[in-house]
Amino acid sequence: MFETLALVGTGMIGGSIGLACKKSAQVGRIIGYDTNPESLEASRALGICDSIEYKLENAIKEADLVVFSTPVQVIAEEIIRAAKSAKSTALFTDTGSTKAEICKSLKTNFKNTGPIYVPAHPIAGSEKNGPTAANAELFKGKLTILCPMENTPAWALDKVSGFWQSIGSRIEKLSPEEHDGIFAFTSHLPHLIAYALAGLLEPRHIQFTAGGFRDTTRVAGSDPILWTEIFKANKGPLINALRGFQDGLNRMESALENGDFESLKAMLAKAQQFRKTVQ
Amino acid sequence: MFETLALVGTGMIGGSIGLACKKSAQVGRIIGYDTNPESLEASRALGICDSIEYKLENAIKEADLVVFSTPVQVIAEEIIRAAKSAKSTALFTDTGSTKAEICKSLKTNFKNTGPIYVPAHPIAGSEKNGPTAANAELFKGKLTILCPMENTPAWALDKVSGFWQSIGSRIEKLSPEEHDGIFAFTSHLPHLIAYALAGLLEPRHIQFTAGGFRDTTRVAGSDPILWTEIFKANKGPLINALRGFQDGLNRMESALENGDFESLKAMLAKAQQFRKTVQ
Repeated sequence: MFETLALVGTGMIGGSIGLACKKSAQVGRIIGYDTNPESLEASRALGICDSIEYKLENAIKEADLVVFSTPVQVIAEEIIRAAKSAKSTALFTDTGSTKAEICKSLKTNFKNTGPIYVPAHPIAGSEKNGPTAANAELFKGKLTILCPMENTPAWALDKVSGFWQSIGSRIEKLSPEEHDGIFAFTSHLPHLIAYALAGLLEPRHIQFTAGGFRDTTRVAGSDPILWTEIFKANKGPLINALRGFQDGLNRMESALENGDFESLKAMLAKAQQFRKTVQ
Repeated sequence: MFETLALVGTGMIGGSIGLACKKSAQVGRIIGYDTNPESLEASRALGICDSIEYKLENAIKEADLVVFSTPVQVIAEEIIRAAKSAKSTALFTDTGSTKAEICKSLKTNFKNTGPIYVPAHPIAGSEKNGPTAANAELFKGKLTILCPMENTPAWALDKVSGFWQSIGSRIEKLSPEEHDGIFAFTSHLPHLIAYALAGLLEPRHIQFTAGGFRDTTRVAGSDPILWTEIFKANKGPLINALRGFQDGLNRMESALENGDFESLKAMLAKAQQFRKTVQ
């Protein structure tokens, strides 16, 4: 139980955390902050927060827990800035889709006294955005990855873990580097591929698309600014995953060109078998 | 209205045609045939056909309309075989995902007297298969592409068009070559990409997959034998589409490597804009 929760970023993810906390009643009051005043005011109107503040420092100064749900490229600097005004006993966590870059930046710039940051990534995205897309059930049964740094105390990890569980998450722990390596394959590469495929088609194709194209490219409806920043923050592991994907495509293309349909079929069968293990 | 309909192939697609015809009542009776006796018997038990036959010739000999819903690589030879036993006034149509190869093969092997074949492709797939996955509503509001050949009489095209409309389809007409060129981009390439992505992941990744991966690879759950045959039948246009896709991926990779995030963002924004036009 946290008496005061501050939400830094009240968009779809931050907003869903607010609504889920209202429902779980594990939080005393919720203060919202967002750089976009319209989004911030909408979050109050939607019952995501009890009150809102137009300055980061005012929003977080009385908070026992601060959740940063802002684009990945600003999380580290917001944490550093917030630490200066926060209670020394405050805990920080976040929802950033990449972890290694944030942790590296904080390792050199974030003092070991005062607020403790426990890196987190709830696996519960959507191509929608803004507080109107917030949903109290977003985290229910979904995984939240916690990425403790070398100096993260066990008690802080436990407390932040309890918070994510209180809004319905299951918890897994990975190092920041393991996290980024895995999510390059399971999330960032699928997004890149969806964008590349949607970007290839021409207007004359639209009326001839069906379920296969729609599903394969659904996440290409996601915010290009947000995803450019995620790709940037996880550049190395993403390029590695992309090269593996291109190798696989090239093998399929060669089999097709050479008329080696037995090999092609074996590749499809292996992929189908893997896909069937994913619910 | 057709007095006697023969379904050659009573799997998911053929079965859905049977159920839809039962509902529309635009067909007198339905005779089923399938090379798989279990699938064939299940189709009768499921009310897809009124009677079944274990020989193609027996199934089609009294038919006024024959619908071939079998794998693309056997459609042409089944049509040639069926034409020998069918009534000279019978009409043939099919559900094959590729059209140029079938039409080319029939142009040289299918006589211009007797039954008339009107090539069709209902855009209503699914990664499921078998008659138990059949659904009377499968074609409702969906597009069926008709690909008349040079010698297809207008009256036969109209009659077959009316049949597809009677089970809920909207109709568009394309030449067989136009059809295959377009569907290489809108259907075959998305399937190939989904297989390549699903085939890249390792078991350790499974628990860290979420909606993005699931949607992007959904169609990789499709039958590898069926799809190897589709890729084979549309090899040329598919390789062309695949190269365009690889060019786009390479441009994204270069932008990422060179730190040219403005160009990367512009590519994502273009793709997002296109994706938003597809419902």
